[in-house]
Amino acid sequence: MTPYEIIAHKRDGKALSKTEIGFIIQGYQKGQIPDYQMAAFLMAVYFQGMNDKETNLLTDAFIHSGSVIDLSDIPGMKVDKHSTGGVGDKISIILAPMVAAAGVYVPMISGRGLGHTGGTLDKLESIPGFKTDYPTSGFKKILRRTGACLIGQTTDLAPVDKKVYALRDVTATVPSIPLIAASIMSKKIAGGTDALVLDIKVGRGAFMTDRSSAQKLARILIRIGKNYGKSTSALLTDMNQPLGYAVGNWLEILECIDCLQDRWPDDLKQLTCRLASLMLQHAGKVETIREGEKLAAHLVTSGKAWKKFISIVRAQKGDTSVIQEPGKYHRAKIEQEIIARRSGWIQNIDALEIGLCAVSLGAGRIRMTDQIDPAAGIRLKVKQGQFVEAKQQLATLFTGRKKELPAVAERVIKAFRITDKKPATSSLILELLSDRDI
Amino acid sequence: MTPYEIIAHKRDGKALSKTEIGFIIQGYQKGQIPDYQMAAFLMAVYFQGMNDKETNLLTDAFIHSGSVIDLSDIPGMKVDKHSTGGVGDKISIILAPMVAAAGVYVPMISGRGLGHTGGTLDKLESIPGFKTDYPTSGFKKILRRTGACLIGQTTDLAPVDKKVYALRDVTATVPSIPLIAASIMSKKIAGGTDALVLDIKVGRGAFMTDRSSAQKLARILIRIGKNYGKSTSALLTDMNQPLGYAVGNWLEILECIDCLQDRWPDDLKQLTCRLASLMLQHAGKVETIREGEKLAAHLVTSGKAWKKFISIVRAQKGDTSVIQEPGKYHRAKIEQEIIARRSGWIQNIDALEIGLCAVSLGAGRIRMTDQIDPAAGIRLKVKQGQFVEAKQQLATLFTGRKKELPAVAERVIKAFRITDKKPATSSLILELLSDRDI
Repeated sequence: MTPYEIIAHKRDGKALSKTEIGFIIQGYQKGQIPDYQMAAFLMAVYFQGMNDKETNLLTDAFIHSGSVIDLSDIPGMKVDKHSTGGVGDKISIILAPMVAAAGVYVPMISGRGLGHTGGTLDKLESIPGFKTDYPTSGFKKILRRTGACLIGQTTDLAPVDKKVYALRDVTATVPSIPLIAASIMSKKIAGGTDALVLDIKVGRGAFMTDRSSAQKLARILIRIGKNYGKSTSALLTDMNQPLGYAVGNWLEILECIDCLQDRWPDDLKQLTCRLASLMLQHAGKVETIREGEKLAAHLVTSGKAWKKFISIVRAQKGDTSVIQEPGKYHRAKIEQEIIARRSGWIQNIDALEIGLCAVSLGAGRIRMTDQIDPAAGIRLKVKQGQFVEAKQQLATLFTGRKKELPAVAERVIKAFRITDKKPATSSLILELLSDRDI
Repeated sequence: MTPYEIIAHKRDGKALSKTEIGFIIQGYQKGQIPDYQMAAFLMAVYFQGMNDKETNLLTDAFIHSGSVIDLSDIPGMKVDKHSTGGVGDKISIILAPMVAAAGVYVPMISGRGLGHTGGTLDKLESIPGFKTDYPTSGFKKILRRTGACLIGQTTDLAPVDKKVYALRDVTATVPSIPLIAASIMSKKIAGGTDALVLDIKVGRGAFMTDRSSAQKLARILIRIGKNYGKSTSALLTDMNQPLGYAVGNWLEILECIDCLQDRWPDDLKQLTCRLASLMLQHAGKVETIREGEKLAAHLVTSGKAWKKFISIVRAQKGDTSVIQEPGKYHRAKIEQEIIARRSGWIQNIDALEIGLCAVSLGAGRIRMTDQIDPAAGIRLKVKQGQFVEAKQQLATLFTGRKKELPAVAERVIKAFRITDKKPATSSLILELLSDRDI
């Protein structure tokens, strides 16, 4: 068997065997297979896809490139949540303390922002001192004591996935369903969770722009979960406009603080409570969606979720005084208001454009090695479906980059599509898929 | 512009601009674009193809990575021939002296064997002392004095094509029509020829196994030639059984000597005379195919082609005494006869299998760095369409590799398909395409 033959098999649309997938993944991990052969292989997978069996084998090869965290000595069902990434999606940061406040352990393996999307780790790290890299022992200690712990992919968790991902990122092979599925599930399964709730984003601001691809991804993720005995469900949700009002790391932490203190934007409340309800169902804490949503809302109004958030920040070495008096902290050098040029109804706010503009202002990275400005970003003042007058404020830009500002401001204005017609109301939550639907 | 964007454009099926193709090819030549991004790009081209304009631009980028040989100070039309590669295809070695003997200059840029196919340079180098690497000045000097010169791709001729080809070879991206076309034509055009005759092989032993792909390749090659003002025609020819009887470097030189002394196998005579006729037509030496074939045959019977061959070998520092008494030279350590297991008609002799078996015996290389045994190979005793008795000899194997012999012998026997039914006669020359057909 040679790497060449495996590339040629996939190129010609053949299903790869367990031996072939093991050979190429282990060979790549050990450095015996060079980047250029892996790059050709990944592009062949992009075009030819992988069947369920191959995707499971790939996930397995990723998992077994490292160690699997054993959480069996922590009582009850451990439940994690994963989002495929969007603009303004800060839900993990609100959700983890909510669900932990209900007595469910939340071992959360999160990611960094890439391209137009933000990442939970970058947002958390905008809290001074907040640490997201822990060895397994530290992760388990915090999880046991606090009820939740949010960390990045450690060097031990599916390490070859990290190497493959870095290569996909520079070879235009990210948007491939089997590659996405194996990458997500290997990390989550290696993280030791018992159950998993997936938030699959669909639309302009998501990696999956059409619903049928999102459904396809959801189904394969659920099937992989099932294969490992992990109870998995997936919510397909709209990502055509940003979630909430804040886009940018510290701006999003401020919005999370508001939500945890029961000052919610409607869309964030609806989706966070639905995801919390699904997690509580997986953990056996509630029977129905309705019951779960009620409990979720109560965990916020009672102040329990906020208290839990403070204790997570403290356990992960974040500065809690900053959380408690957030107004004092992180001010961008420049703030600029964006004003409507006409009156009318907001048909849409292009999430992709807003995400890319936030990156240009310093809030994100194009390459994994880029630096982030925690204060940079965009705060919307309005949402889709609202009526605005001419000269009404649409958004505020926050940045330290004076030079980029005029071009970005122009793009942000154009991201708001304003017309004379009142838009039809659109749904945020599109569909729930679970074990029963695959 | 980034390499990532260019890969993504091609992945998504977009036509690349001149700037994009120039950027990726020049960047790769300078080492600014790494192998892994080029590998992903090549696999994207494999799947999405390139239109005519892109293929011309790619050819141009290859050509301009080096220098173009100026042959304008050598009188008359210079004519080269190129074969897409097959098993037992030693025609260049017979053709170059024939056409040169008619007073047409033949500047021939040849290749090495790869995979199951042999290469003209390896065959010529089995003549002791024969040199195939000359700088431009030496190439022109020999061409002017001798009328023909057969060399490899110098470091100056389309150097980035050489780098790209080496990468294609290990990333399973060789069989792509635009990549094949740009690779062939950039070398030929940089070699300074005025006209080009192409022998496009079709069948089991060729890189193009179906006729429609071969036609597609022929048409794009002719169009590129036209774009550069090079008069180009293409013959589609059958490569289901080996050409002639000899497969292996020195064995093929022996067969060339026989042909040049008018002891031809039928298939070699038919195809060589047809190709010679086309070259003579391009050079304006004859009007019709018939006339050209007659002249070609006469150049052999008169001894002129044989004399020209001797002077080419001498000019390129080959030992002419070996050519004149070839029986004394290069004997394989082991010779083994292959015997028919049954009587019947030979339906087919699988060219791919014979080619691969010859490689296993030491006649070829799987990787560009592999060593070749000039004495190794297979000499067929029969051809397709013949009737054989049980125990009649089918072939002789020549090798220094005792260990491989039993398995190879078994494969060679199986490469002969013998049945009770007399096979239909098949055509060697399938189709001629020229400027008028595209």
